[in-house]
Amino acid sequence: MANDPLSVTFAALADPTRRAILARLSRGETTVTELAEPFDMSMPAISKHLKVLERAGLIERGREAQWRPCRLQAGPLRDVEGWVEQYRIHWEERLDRLGDYLRELQTREKSDDDSSEQ
Amino acid sequence: MANDPLSVTFAALADPTRRAILARLSRGETTVTELAEPFDMSMPAISKHLKVLERAGLIERGREAQWRPCRLQAGPLRDVEGWVEQYRIHWEERLDRLGDYLRELQTREKSDDDSSEQ
Repeated sequence: MANDPLSVTFAALADPTRRAILARLSRGETTVTELAEPFDMSMPAISKHLKVLERAGLIERGREAQWRPCRLQAGPLRDVEGWVEQYRIHWEERLDRLGDYLRELQTREKSDDDSSEQ
Repeated sequence: MANDPLSVTFAALADPTRRAILARLSRGETTVTELAEPFDMSMPAISKHLKVLERAGLIERGREAQWRPCRLQAGPLRDVEGWVEQYRIHWEERLDRLGDYLRELQTREKSDDDSSEQ
């Protein structure tokens, strides 16, 4: 598995549970126990996911022994946004072409209606 | 490995060679042979990467037997952008806090300079 920072971030995001953990943390820091509640998962399974997120720099854990709150770290997500942004022109082009096609269909339908009314 | 569309996309992006292939294809469609040239990789290795990208819907292959050009498909990248956008507030907040801190440092330095000038 590639270990450059962007690859590590993408690999960490390639799991719906880990993305749900980030979504929960975007609403505020929390303990691991609280974090685990909505998921039907064992604590070791949750801990494994947290380790992947921590290694990718997407979360940070408090240092207090009993209360080790998890916090979102958005830096790597900014890098994902920076990477994906460069492709924006491609999906916008595609939407433009789809828009042109729909307009063409409408014009064609309209002229069909006009000719049937004659 | 998770097989929901967003997870499949993120997993496909978690490799620098596959991201380099997309960068190449963003400049226009090309054959697999041309695509393989800049990479010091065997054709089977490149083909494996292309299969991962194709499964994620990030590329499309032409149907012509001899000339099967690869084309970028940006739809899944738009979904990545949509997902990551919701975290923008978090990295912007962080940059705002960093900005506040730098301004505070500058003000402090300035007042230090002012008092040493007296």
